[in-house]
Amino acid sequence: MDFSRYFPIWPQLTAAEREHLSAAAVCREVKQGTLLHSGSADCLGLLMVEAGRLRAYILSGEGREITLYRLLERDVCLLSASCMMRGAQFDVAVEAERDSTLWVIPSETYRQIMANSAPLANYTNELMAGRFADVMWLMEQVMWKSMDRRLAAFLLEEAALEETEVLPLTQERIGAHLGTAREVVTRMLRYFQGEGLVKLRRGAVELTDPAGLRALAGK
Amino acid sequence: MDFSRYFPIWPQLTAAEREHLSAAAVCREVKQGTLLHSGSADCLGLLMVEAGRLRAYILSGEGREITLYRLLERDVCLLSASCMMRGAQFDVAVEAERDSTLWVIPSETYRQIMANSAPLANYTNELMAGRFADVMWLMEQVMWKSMDRRLAAFLLEEAALEETEVLPLTQERIGAHLGTAREVVTRMLRYFQGEGLVKLRRGAVELTDPAGLRALAGK
Repeated sequence: MDFSRYFPIWPQLTAAEREHLSAAAVCREVKQGTLLHSGSADCLGLLMVEAGRLRAYILSGEGREITLYRLLERDVCLLSASCMMRGAQFDVAVEAERDSTLWVIPSETYRQIMANSAPLANYTNELMAGRFADVMWLMEQVMWKSMDRRLAAFLLEEAALEETEVLPLTQERIGAHLGTAREVVTRMLRYFQGEGLVKLRRGAVELTDPAGLRALAGK
Repeated sequence: MDFSRYFPIWPQLTAAEREHLSAAAVCREVKQGTLLHSGSADCLGLLMVEAGRLRAYILSGEGREITLYRLLERDVCLLSASCMMRGAQFDVAVEAERDSTLWVIPSETYRQIMANSAPLANYTNELMAGRFADVMWLMEQVMWKSMDRRLAAFLLEEAALEETEVLPLTQERIGAHLGTAREVVTRMLRYFQGEGLVKLRRGAVELTDPAGLRALAGK
């Protein structure tokens, strides 16, 4: 495998560090729906996505979900190795949203190398700051944006991610992504349909007016 | 000043790094209410709280607020230096909630030293992971906890922070901390008063049954 795809600072590591990381990385093939990490008790390690797609989300006591972010090809998942950082208790779950090929670096190996490598520690810092900013953005959405704008933005993002305007998503599933009840999604989608923004199908939503959705999402 | 109060890894820095940081730090006295940082355009630098108290919060377009966390004596504020990290755009504001004495390290100085120091970069990582976890916790609160539990938890935290059971807080101010309208707070506080949990005074809330509040907060 080519580590520099995931770590642009790869050339700044010593030969011994590169060898240590390479030897520790294990390749895993996982099926769609596999739960890779759940909460701070787990400590699977750092995940590098070679192919497929992962989803990081939080789960309430009553089983409601909200999607934090997606990890695509070449992305690195830090939260599944958060046990290596003192004071970081994250109750985040990570699942494979597609059949995926991953490289796993055990948390302890990564921590040891990072302890002595300023380039790796600084890069890890950047990765974490980026995820932190994603979650802060989401928090602002949840706090301040009304559901119609959030739903419009979500539909547009999904369409871009899937490269299709017919999204094979149930209303229940959309609710799980947005952290809201199915009934709220249903009501809003019917309103969108009335406005000509979408067309509801069995188990799918077709975007019929992406420009209108963009205007609504404020993008 | 004694940097090791803020940086337990101080002895692991080189003499040159210690000197560089010490020479760059500037002491500032700020009055209660001073806005120290607002959004990602600002880049004041790393703040170390010698005395007083800071509050980090986010602000909506319509001027609503929600408190993310407080910074007390010996705490270090990273988000006011987030410009030093690529990919980290945080629209966070930081204000002095009390008259405060702060040490400021310019972002660029800190970034330069961190680029070459694995101990400093790793410690910065830990600080950031801790704040990230705080915000994730808050997000779960906002998403899943009903307002009565959040309000009870907030009153208990304030009482512990202020070391008093008579909190000099207006209902408007409580709403700003919790990211909700004053009317919602008023309604809930009246309900709490009816249950004997609090007593409402002019511009203040007295906790009359902390044990009952703890039970409600689920603590």
